[in-house]
Amino acid sequence: MRATLIYGAGDVRVEEVPDPVLREPTDALVRVLRSCICGSDLWPYGSRPATAEGDRIGHEFLGVVEDTGAEVSRFKRGDVVVAPFVYSDGTCDFCAQGLQTSCRHGGFWGAGGVDGGQGEAVRVPQADGTLVKLPVGEDSALLPSLLTLSDVFGTGHHAATTAGVGPRTTVTVIGDGAVGLCAVLAAKRLGAEQIVLMGRHKVRTDIGRDFGATDVVAERGEEGVAKVMELTGGDGTHAVLECVGLRDAIDTAYGVVRAGGRISRVGVPQYPEVPAGAPSFLRNVTLTGGVAPARAYIEELLPDVLDGKVQPGRVFDTTIGLDGVPEGYQAMADRRALKVLIAV
Amino acid sequence: MRATLIYGAGDVRVEEVPDPVLREPTDALVRVLRSCICGSDLWPYGSRPATAEGDRIGHEFLGVVEDTGAEVSRFKRGDVVVAPFVYSDGTCDFCAQGLQTSCRHGGFWGAGGVDGGQGEAVRVPQADGTLVKLPVGEDSALLPSLLTLSDVFGTGHHAATTAGVGPRTTVTVIGDGAVGLCAVLAAKRLGAEQIVLMGRHKVRTDIGRDFGATDVVAERGEEGVAKVMELTGGDGTHAVLECVGLRDAIDTAYGVVRAGGRISRVGVPQYPEVPAGAPSFLRNVTLTGGVAPARAYIEELLPDVLDGKVQPGRVFDTTIGLDGVPEGYQAMADRRALKVLIAV
Repeated sequence: MRATLIYGAGDVRVEEVPDPVLREPTDALVRVLRSCICGSDLWPYGSRPATAEGDRIGHEFLGVVEDTGAEVSRFKRGDVVVAPFVYSDGTCDFCAQGLQTSCRHGGFWGAGGVDGGQGEAVRVPQADGTLVKLPVGEDSALLPSLLTLSDVFGTGHHAATTAGVGPRTTVTVIGDGAVGLCAVLAAKRLGAEQIVLMGRHKVRTDIGRDFGATDVVAERGEEGVAKVMELTGGDGTHAVLECVGLRDAIDTAYGVVRAGGRISRVGVPQYPEVPAGAPSFLRNVTLTGGVAPARAYIEELLPDVLDGKVQPGRVFDTTIGLDGVPEGYQAMADRRALKVLIAV
Repeated sequence: MRATLIYGAGDVRVEEVPDPVLREPTDALVRVLRSCICGSDLWPYGSRPATAEGDRIGHEFLGVVEDTGAEVSRFKRGDVVVAPFVYSDGTCDFCAQGLQTSCRHGGFWGAGGVDGGQGEAVRVPQADGTLVKLPVGEDSALLPSLLTLSDVFGTGHHAATTAGVGPRTTVTVIGDGAVGLCAVLAAKRLGAEQIVLMGRHKVRTDIGRDFGATDVVAERGEEGVAKVMELTGGDGTHAVLECVGLRDAIDTAYGVVRAGGRISRVGVPQYPEVPAGAPSFLRNVTLTGGVAPARAYIEELLPDVLDGKVQPGRVFDTTIGLDGVPEGYQAMADRRALKVLIAV
């Protein structure tokens, strides 16, 4: 089959790789219908040292079950399924508490002999715990939005829930990338009263407004903080969802959070430390978030996607085939594309 | 009257100062019965630059109402009352949400023309919002434990509640000072299943065991982390209460926290930044806590103190008069005293 490999910064290739086969009785084989490129894929695309052997890449996919191991009981050939960006057994104590990203038998796609998602098929370990059946056909118009359950919408939802967003909450979302926009959508869905989106790409912030942002702040740094303060009576917002991952962004988060508020960070933050001095301590600011246990949220988010109440698939502004993946990476790196959908 | 002033590192004096008078209709005058020295007082005692004029100091006291302003309706002369370590109006939105430390009309004792607590009397601003009446006499044997409601027990409780301690929670408390011991007591009171106390002063950790610690770890740094891991099946604890305030302590906290767990820090942390890289992000570790809104907790904690169910006053191992305050500071700085009670 064909799959995507990364060989170094700027060097992504689609190549022939061995067809996946069942190895464990808990495995399933999934033929990929849709995959996509994640903002987090851009970190290795920007900096991975070049090597002779490439690594499989991609961690968001939905597809059709082609075969199942003897111990897989929840799925059968022909089921349309979505996979979260981490596989997990669904039975351990961490899975039981909804932290599938810390599953005792889980792991990431594209590592340790497990296929990446940007390819024609994937061997899915721990299939019963990992996959979620989708009540749609292979040609459903909902596939793009359903695909976001594998990562980006779940990640936005994780930011919002860990930050305690609910009715009467005021929220600042930092970043107008796909995660930031999904965080806006998640905050709106949870009933947030005010959603300030900090971003300066009008095409993207316009989607943010459609998703529920009540205000858009294009300024950054101190100017941006001042603007959010102005919009919130000088207090800042109860919740701040940091969806960029750079130090400037988390510093801004501490600048716009209300006393007693929560900052949640998602994505793949690149800063090794965060401010923890008197300003955050005396104001009782909580820092939360982390890698999103997307699996935990699929059942909750799925109905709203199925009935069209939310349309997170709008973050995909470019659709390509598998051959187009290298160009898709470059388009996202150049910010010509917001998020690239791969119709395999 | 006499009150305590700090002039510089190691230079604390008890001097004559003007008697407090009512200035605002919302003020009350309180004659101090008991005050004490806080671990946080040791930071200026260790490093304050010397000045010709001293600053009033002390922020924990209980006493008797001597006079009240025209707008004070909840207290009258003769009431025995305790004051939390921040005064607050009790009516603003932050007070309403239990974050009196961010009160819109609040402030700290000993600053801005407000008396410190280590003296014979205190003018209490925002008396109706600040004070809590105690149903005891001036000679009650419960005064030491009741005094801890002003700060140290409330601070331990803040650590435990913000970290989400409850039944089935496993907890690590870092630090065997008065705050650490009160954090143990608070965690036990909230039903924690396992409480590992990290401390190496046997007299103190023995109190910790009495307060509810199930395990004591004397080792520090990597060795200490390894020991806690051993005690928790390799997982760490759901909650970590950081009650030291030094960088080593918060680093240890990140080492012993369970995936999905919460670190709460209280006291007066001296570190400007905390780790926020992949280990905490991928494990979904939350950092919470902050300066404790002690006022928010008094009504909840008071009944258990009154009926002797908890005895936080056991953290006082030394009692002095006002004249003894300078020596009390030195005794705490030398770790000859755990916490010094001042019988004014």
